[in-house]
Amino acid sequence: MCKSTLLTVAILVGLCVFEVGCTSAEKCQATSMPESLDTQRVTQVAVVVRDVEKAAKGWADLFGVEVPKSSLTDPLEKAHTTYRGRPTQGRAKLVFFKLDNLQLELIEPVGGPSTWREFLETNGEGVHHIAFEVKGTDKYVAMLEKKGMPLVQRGEWTVYTGGCYTYFDSVQKLGVALELLENY
Amino acid sequence: MCKSTLLTVAILVGLCVFEVGCTSAEKCQATSMPESLDTQRVTQVAVVVRDVEKAAKGWADLFGVEVPKSSLTDPLEKAHTTYRGRPTQGRAKLVFFKLDNLQLELIEPVGGPSTWREFLETNGEGVHHIAFEVKGTDKYVAMLEKKGMPLVQRGEWTVYTGGCYTYFDSVQKLGVALELLENY
Repeated sequence: MCKSTLLTVAILVGLCVFEVGCTSAEKCQATSMPESLDTQRVTQVAVVVRDVEKAAKGWADLFGVEVPKSSLTDPLEKAHTTYRGRPTQGRAKLVFFKLDNLQLELIEPVGGPSTWREFLETNGEGVHHIAFEVKGTDKYVAMLEKKGMPLVQRGEWTVYTGGCYTYFDSVQKLGVALELLENY
Repeated sequence: MCKSTLLTVAILVGLCVFEVGCTSAEKCQATSMPESLDTQRVTQVAVVVRDVEKAAKGWADLFGVEVPKSSLTDPLEKAHTTYRGRPTQGRAKLVFFKLDNLQLELIEPVGGPSTWREFLETNGEGVHHIAFEVKGTDKYVAMLEKKGMPLVQRGEWTVYTGGCYTYFDSVQKLGVALELLENY
Protein backbone atom coordinates (compact mmCIF):
# COMPACT_ATOMS: atom_id res chain seq x y z
CA MET A 1 0.00 0.00 0.00
CA CYS A 2 1.55 3.32 -0.99
CA LYS A 3 2.02 6.19 1.44
CA SER A 4 -0.76 8.35 -0.04
CA THR A 5 -3.28 5.51 0.29
CA LEU A 6 -2.26 4.93 3.90
CA LEU A 7 -2.65 8.65 4.57
CA THR A 8 -6.13 8.68 3.01
CA VAL A 9 -7.19 5.68 5.10
CA ALA A 10 -5.83 7.32 8.24
CA ILE A 11 -7.75 10.54 7.50
CA LEU A 12 -11.00 8.66 6.83
CA VAL A 13 -10.68 6.61 10.03
CA GLY A 14 -9.88 9.79 11.91
CA LEU A 15 -12.96 11.56 10.50
CA CYS A 16 -15.13 8.58 11.37
CA VAL A 17 -13.86 8.47 14.97
CA PHE A 18 -14.29 12.24 15.23
CA GLU A 19 -17.82 12.15 13.83
CA VAL A 20 -19.36 9.53 16.06
CA GLY A 21 -17.02 9.74 19.02
CA CYS A 22 -16.23 6.06 18.95
CA THR A 23 -13.59 3.70 17.77
CA SER A 24 -15.50 0.47 17.18
CA ALA A 25 -15.96 -0.54 13.56
CA GLU A 26 -19.55 -1.48 14.28
CA LYS A 27 -20.56 1.99 15.43
CA CYS A 28 -18.61 3.67 12.67
CA GLN A 29 -20.45 1.64 10.07
CA ALA A 30 -23.68 3.06 11.46
CA THR A 31 -22.73 6.48 10.06
CA SER A 32 -23.60 5.14 6.59
CA MET A 33 -27.23 4.92 7.69
CA PRO A 34 -29.07 8.03 6.52
CA GLU A 35 -30.96 10.13 9.09
CA SER A 36 -33.86 10.86 6.74
CA LEU A 37 -35.35 9.73 3.46
CA ASP A 38 -33.30 11.89 1.02
CA THR A 39 -36.31 12.19 -1.30
CA GLN A 40 -39.61 14.02 -1.06
CA ARG A 41 -41.03 12.72 -4.31
CA VAL A 42 -44.03 10.39 -4.02
CA THR A 43 -43.58 8.01 -6.93
CA GLN A 44 -46.64 5.87 -6.34
CA VAL A 45 -50.01 5.83 -4.59
CA ALA A 46 -51.38 2.29 -4.31
CA VAL A 47 -54.97 1.24 -3.69
CA VAL A 48 -55.91 -2.25 -2.52
CA VAL A 49 -59.18 -3.39 -4.09
CA ARG A 50 -61.27 -6.56 -4.17
CA ASP A 51 -61.54 -6.71 -7.97
CA VAL A 52 -58.72 -5.04 -9.87
CA GLU A 53 -60.45 -5.29 -13.28
CA LYS A 54 -63.56 -3.53 -11.94
CA ALA A 55 -61.56 -0.79 -10.23
CA ALA A 56 -59.40 -0.32 -13.34
CA LYS A 57 -62.55 0.24 -15.40
CA GLY A 58 -63.71 2.84 -12.89
CA TRP A 59 -60.43 4.78 -13.04
CA ALA A 60 -60.19 4.48 -16.84
CA ASP A 61 -63.72 5.88 -17.12
CA LEU A 62 -62.82 8.70 -14.73
CA PHE A 63 -59.80 9.71 -16.81
CA GLY A 64 -61.33 8.91 -20.21
CA VAL A 65 -58.55 6.46 -21.11
CA GLU A 66 -58.32 2.81 -22.10
CA VAL A 67 -58.27 0.19 -19.36
CA PRO A 68 -54.63 -0.89 -18.84
CA LYS A 69 -53.85 -4.60 -18.85
CA SER A 70 -53.37 -6.29 -15.50
CA SER A 71 -50.27 -8.25 -14.52
CA LEU A 72 -49.40 -10.71 -11.77
CA THR A 73 -46.51 -10.35 -9.34
CA ASP A 74 -43.77 -12.96 -9.70
CA PRO A 75 -44.13 -16.29 -7.84
CA LEU A 76 -42.16 -16.93 -4.67
CA GLU A 77 -39.33 -18.63 -6.57
CA LYS A 78 -38.62 -15.45 -8.52
CA ALA A 79 -39.87 -12.74 -6.14
CA HIS A 80 -38.39 -14.25 -2.95
CA THR A 81 -41.29 -12.64 -1.13
CA THR A 82 -41.13 -12.54 2.66
CA TYR A 83 -44.05 -11.39 4.79
CA ARG A 84 -43.43 -10.77 8.48
CA GLY A 85 -40.09 -12.53 8.17
CA ARG A 86 -41.30 -15.73 6.47
CA PRO A 87 -41.47 -16.76 2.81
CA THR A 88 -45.01 -16.49 1.43
CA GLN A 89 -46.93 -17.56 -1.66
CA GLY A 90 -48.86 -14.29 -1.38
CA ARG A 91 -49.09 -12.53 -4.74
CA ALA A 92 -51.07 -9.67 -6.28
CA LYS A 93 -52.83 -8.82 -9.52
CA LEU A 94 -51.78 -5.31 -10.48
CA VAL A 95 -52.94 -2.51 -12.76
CA PHE A 96 -50.89 0.65 -13.23
CA PHE A 97 -52.05 4.07 -14.44
CA LYS A 98 -49.21 6.40 -15.44
CA LEU A 99 -50.56 9.74 -14.23
CA ASP A 100 -48.88 13.09 -14.85
CA ASN A 101 -46.85 13.23 -11.65
CA LEU A 102 -46.97 9.71 -10.21
CA GLN A 103 -48.03 6.13 -10.75
CA LEU A 104 -51.42 4.97 -9.53
CA GLU A 105 -51.26 1.28 -8.63
CA LEU A 106 -54.31 -0.93 -8.12
CA ILE A 107 -53.67 -4.13 -6.14
CA GLU A 108 -55.86 -7.21 -5.80
CA PRO A 109 -54.38 -9.70 -3.32
CA VAL A 110 -54.23 -13.30 -4.57
CA GLY A 111 -52.66 -16.47 -3.15
CA GLY A 112 -51.23 -16.70 0.35
CA PRO A 113 -50.71 -14.22 3.18
CA SER A 114 -49.43 -10.76 2.33
CA THR A 115 -49.59 -7.19 3.57
CA TRP A 116 -52.11 -6.55 0.75
CA ARG A 117 -54.46 -9.29 1.95
CA GLU A 118 -54.03 -8.23 5.57
CA PHE A 119 -54.96 -4.65 4.64
CA LEU A 120 -58.06 -5.73 2.69
CA GLU A 121 -59.26 -7.98 5.49
CA THR A 122 -58.65 -5.34 8.17
CA ASN A 123 -59.57 -2.08 6.43
CA GLY A 124 -61.50 -3.01 3.32
CA GLU A 125 -60.60 -1.23 0.09
CA GLY A 126 -58.38 1.83 0.40
CA VAL A 127 -54.90 3.29 -0.06
CA HIS A 128 -52.44 0.62 1.07
CA HIS A 129 -49.23 2.65 0.77
CA ILE A 130 -47.44 5.58 -0.73
CA ALA A 131 -44.04 4.87 -2.27
CA PHE A 132 -40.70 6.60 -2.57
CA GLU A 133 -37.84 5.50 -4.83
CA VAL A 134 -34.43 4.96 -3.27
CA LYS A 135 -31.00 3.59 -4.06
CA GLY A 136 -29.55 1.25 -1.42
CA THR A 137 -32.68 -0.12 0.19
CA ASP A 138 -31.01 -1.80 3.17
CA LYS A 139 -29.66 1.40 4.70
CA TYR A 140 -33.19 2.88 4.59
CA VAL A 141 -34.64 -0.29 6.11
CA ALA A 142 -32.20 0.20 8.99
CA MET A 143 -33.14 3.90 9.25
CA LEU A 144 -36.89 3.23 9.30
CA GLU A 145 -36.57 0.38 11.80
CA LYS A 146 -34.54 2.68 14.06
CA LYS A 147 -37.36 5.23 13.81
CA GLY A 148 -39.87 2.59 14.94
CA MET A 149 -41.21 1.55 11.52
CA PRO A 150 -40.40 -2.16 11.11
CA LEU A 151 -40.17 -3.98 7.80
CA VAL A 152 -43.34 -5.97 7.05
CA GLN A 153 -42.83 -7.40 3.57
CA ARG A 154 -40.20 -7.41 0.88
CA GLY A 155 -39.95 -8.90 -2.56
CA GLU A 156 -38.44 -8.51 -5.99
CA TRP A 157 -39.67 -8.11 -9.52
CA THR A 158 -37.97 -9.36 -12.67
CA VAL A 159 -39.72 -7.42 -15.45
CA TYR A 160 -38.11 -4.33 -17.01
CA THR A 161 -34.84 -3.68 -15.19
CA GLY A 162 -35.88 -5.68 -12.15
CA GLY A 163 -35.93 -4.29 -8.66
CA CYS A 164 -37.04 -4.76 -5.08
CA TYR A 165 -39.74 -3.35 -2.86
CA THR A 166 -40.05 -3.08 0.91
CA TYR A 167 -43.13 -2.23 2.99
CA PHE A 168 -43.04 -0.79 6.49
CA ASP A 169 -45.44 -0.75 9.40
CA SER A 170 -45.54 3.05 9.62
CA VAL A 171 -49.25 3.60 10.29
CA GLN A 172 -48.72 4.42 13.97
CA LYS A 173 -46.02 7.00 13.16
CA LEU A 174 -47.30 8.43 9.85
CA GLY A 175 -50.90 7.29 9.44
CA VAL A 176 -50.08 5.25 6.31
CA ALA A 177 -47.76 2.44 5.24
CA LEU A 178 -44.59 3.38 3.37
CA GLU A 179 -43.08 1.51 0.46
CA LEU A 180 -39.54 1.91 -0.79
CA LEU A 181 -38.94 0.98 -4.42
CA GLU A 182 -35.53 0.33 -5.91
CA ASN A 183 -34.98 -0.23 -9.61
CA TYR A 184 -31.76 -2.15 -10.24
CA MET B 1 -77.33 43.28 -30.29
CA CYS B 2 -75.17 43.62 -33.41
CA LYS B 3 -75.43 41.31 -36.43
CA SER B 4 -72.13 39.51 -35.73
CA THR B 5 -73.23 38.70 -32.16
CA LEU B 6 -76.56 37.35 -33.44
CA LEU B 7 -74.69 35.23 -35.97
CA THR B 8 -72.38 33.85 -33.27
CA VAL B 9 -75.34 32.98 -31.04
CA ALA B 10 -77.11 31.29 -33.97
CA ILE B 11 -73.99 29.23 -34.77
CA LEU B 12 -73.55 28.18 -31.11
CA VAL B 13 -77.22 27.16 -30.76
CA GLY B 14 -76.96 25.28 -34.05
CA LEU B 15 -73.82 23.45 -32.90
CA CYS B 16 -75.50 22.54 -29.63
CA VAL B 17 -78.61 21.15 -31.33
CA PHE B 18 -76.42 19.29 -33.82
CA GLU B 19 -74.19 17.82 -31.10
CA VAL B 20 -76.86 16.32 -28.86
CA GLY B 21 -79.69 15.93 -31.33
CA CYS B 22 -82.14 17.88 -29.22
CA THR B 23 -83.62 21.34 -28.94
CA SER B 24 -84.46 21.59 -25.25
CA ALA B 25 -82.35 24.02 -23.25
CA GLU B 26 -82.09 21.49 -20.43
CA LYS B 27 -80.48 18.79 -22.55
CA CYS B 28 -78.21 21.22 -24.32
CA GLN B 29 -76.91 22.51 -21.00
CA ALA B 30 -75.92 18.94 -20.22
CA THR B 31 -73.31 19.10 -23.00
CA SER B 32 -71.25 21.37 -20.73
CA MET B 33 -70.79 18.43 -18.37
CA PRO B 34 -67.41 16.80 -19.07
CA GLU B 35 -67.20 13.06 -19.70
CA SER B 36 -64.00 12.63 -17.74
CA LEU B 37 -61.78 14.46 -15.30
CA ASP B 38 -59.61 16.50 -17.75
CA THR B 39 -56.62 16.18 -15.41
CA GLN B 40 -54.39 13.28 -14.43
CA ARG B 41 -52.32 15.22 -11.91
CA VAL B 42 -52.71 14.20 -8.27
CA THR B 43 -52.28 17.46 -6.38
CA GLN B 44 -52.75 16.11 -2.88
CA VAL B 45 -52.65 12.92 -0.83
CA ALA B 46 -54.41 13.36 2.51
CA VAL B 47 -54.03 11.22 5.62
CA VAL B 48 -56.57 11.29 8.47
CA VAL B 49 -54.84 10.90 11.84
CA ARG B 50 -55.83 11.02 15.50
CA ASP B 51 -53.16 13.54 16.52
CA VAL B 52 -51.97 15.83 13.75
CA GLU B 53 -49.06 17.26 15.78
CA LYS B 54 -47.71 13.78 16.50
CA ALA B 55 -48.07 12.65 12.87
CA ALA B 56 -46.47 15.89 11.63
CA LYS B 57 -43.44 15.22 13.85
CA GLY B 58 -43.20 11.71 12.37
CA TRP B 59 -43.24 12.97 8.76
CA ALA B 60 -40.85 15.85 9.53
CA ASP B 61 -38.44 13.38 11.10
CA LEU B 62 -38.78 11.09 8.06
CA PHE B 63 -37.91 13.91 5.65
CA GLY B 64 -35.41 15.69 7.93
CA VAL B 65 -37.35 18.97 7.83
CA GLU B 66 -38.93 21.29 10.39
CA VAL B 67 -42.42 20.51 11.64
CA PRO B 68 -44.86 22.76 9.73
CA LYS B 69 -47.38 24.76 11.76
CA SER B 70 -50.92 23.42 11.94
CA SER B 71 -54.01 25.40 10.95
CA LEU B 72 -57.74 25.02 11.52
CA THR B 73 -60.38 24.93 8.79
CA ASP B 74 -62.76 27.89 8.75
CA PRO B 75 -65.88 27.76 10.95
CA LEU B 76 -69.26 26.99 9.41
CA GLU B 77 -70.08 30.70 8.97
CA LYS B 78 -67.11 31.15 6.65
CA ALA B 79 -66.67 27.67 5.20
CA HIS B 80 -70.38 26.96 4.60
CA THR B 81 -69.55 23.31 5.18
CA THR B 82 -72.18 20.75 4.26
CA TYR B 83 -71.83 17.07 5.10
CA ARG B 84 -74.28 14.64 3.53
CA GLY B 85 -76.44 17.56 2.48
CA ARG B 86 -76.68 19.33 5.85
CA PRO B 87 -74.66 22.17 7.38
CA THR B 88 -72.13 20.91 9.93
CA GLN B 89 -69.84 22.35 12.61
CA GLY B 90 -67.33 19.66 11.65
CA ARG B 91 -63.85 21.10 11.24
CA ALA B 92 -60.29 19.81 10.92
CA LYS B 93 -56.82 20.64 12.18
CA LEU B 94 -54.46 20.49 9.21
CA VAL B 95 -50.74 20.23 8.53
CA PHE B 96 -49.35 20.48 5.01
CA PHE B 97 -46.02 19.21 3.69
CA LYS B 98 -45.07 20.63 0.29
CA LEU B 99 -43.37 17.63 -1.31
CA ASP B 100 -41.61 17.67 -4.69
CA ASN B 101 -44.58 16.62 -6.80
CA LEU B 102 -47.63 17.00 -4.56
CA GLN B 103 -48.95 18.22 -1.25
CA LEU B 104 -49.15 15.83 1.69
CA GLU B 105 -52.03 16.83 3.95
CA LEU B 106 -52.50 15.56 7.50
CA ILE B 107 -56.04 15.90 8.87
CA GLU B 108 -57.23 15.63 12.48
CA PRO B 109 -61.04 15.81 12.70
CA VAL B 110 -62.38 18.25 15.30
CA GLY B 111 -65.89 19.53 16.14
CA GLY B 112 -69.04 18.04 14.63
CA PRO B 113 -69.73 15.37 12.02
CA SER B 114 -67.58 15.29 8.89
CA THR B 115 -66.25 12.88 6.31
CA TRP B 116 -62.91 13.07 8.14
CA ARG B 117 -64.44 11.98 11.47
CA GLU B 118 -66.51 9.28 9.75
CA PHE B 119 -63.35 7.89 8.09
CA LEU B 120 -61.39 7.84 11.38
CA GLU B 121 -64.22 6.12 13.24
CA THR B 122 -64.77 3.56 10.46
CA ASN B 123 -61.26 2.85 9.19
CA GLY B 124 -58.86 4.25 11.78
CA GLU B 125 -55.90 6.26 10.54
CA GLY B 126 -55.20 6.13 6.82
CA VAL B 127 -55.37 7.91 3.48
CA HIS B 128 -58.72 9.69 3.38
CA HIS B 129 -58.59 10.98 -0.19
CA ILE B 130 -56.51 11.87 -3.19
CA ALA B 131 -57.21 15.24 -4.77
CA PHE B 132 -57.30 16.73 -8.25
CA GLU B 133 -57.51 20.45 -9.06
CA VAL B 134 -60.29 21.63 -11.36
CA LYS B 135 -61.93 24.79 -12.67
CA GLY B 136 -65.73 24.80 -12.56
CA THR B 137 -66.43 22.38 -9.72
CA ASP B 138 -70.18 22.01 -10.32
CA LYS B 139 -69.87 20.42 -13.75
CA TYR B 140 -67.50 17.80 -12.28
CA VAL B 141 -69.88 17.19 -9.38
CA ALA B 142 -72.57 16.44 -11.98
CA MET B 143 -70.19 14.19 -13.93
CA LEU B 144 -69.13 12.20 -10.84
CA GLU B 145 -72.70 11.84 -9.57
CA LYS B 146 -73.69 10.56 -13.02
CA LYS B 147 -70.89 7.98 -12.77
CA GLY B 148 -72.26 6.81 -9.39
CA MET B 149 -69.96 8.78 -7.09
CA PRO B 150 -72.19 11.07 -5.02
CA LEU B 151 -71.05 14.26 -3.29
CA VAL B 152 -70.45 13.70 0.42
CA GLN B 153 -69.08 16.99 1.73
CA ARG B 154 -68.26 20.43 0.43
CA GLY B 155 -66.86 23.57 1.93
CA GLU B 156 -64.83 26.68 1.25
CA TRP B 157 -61.64 28.23 2.52
CA THR B 158 -60.87 31.92 2.79
CA VAL B 159 -57.08 32.01 3.20
CA TYR B 160 -54.79 32.80 0.25
CA THR B 161 -56.98 33.18 -2.83
CA GLY B 162 -59.89 31.29 -1.30
CA GLY B 163 -61.44 28.26 -2.90
CA CYS B 164 -63.77 25.33 -2.48
CA TYR B 165 -63.41 21.60 -1.98
CA THR B 166 -65.75 18.70 -2.67
CA TYR B 167 -65.48 15.09 -1.52
CA PHE B 168 -67.10 12.14 -3.25
CA ASP B 169 -68.15 8.68 -2.15
CA SER B 170 -66.01 6.91 -4.73
CA VAL B 171 -64.67 4.01 -2.66
CA GLN B 172 -66.96 1.45 -4.30
CA LYS B 173 -65.92 2.56 -7.81
CA LEU B 174 -62.26 3.48 -7.28
CA GLY B 175 -61.21 2.10 -3.90
CA VAL B 176 -60.58 5.58 -2.47
CA ALA B 177 -62.41 8.87 -1.93
CA LEU B 178 -61.82 11.65 -4.44
CA GLU B 179 -61.51 15.32 -3.65
CA LEU B 180 -61.80 18.12 -6.17
CA LEU B 181 -60.05 21.37 -5.25
CA GLU B 182 -60.75 24.70 -6.89
CA ASN B 183 -58.74 27.82 -6.20
CA TYR B 184 -60.73 30.96 -6.98
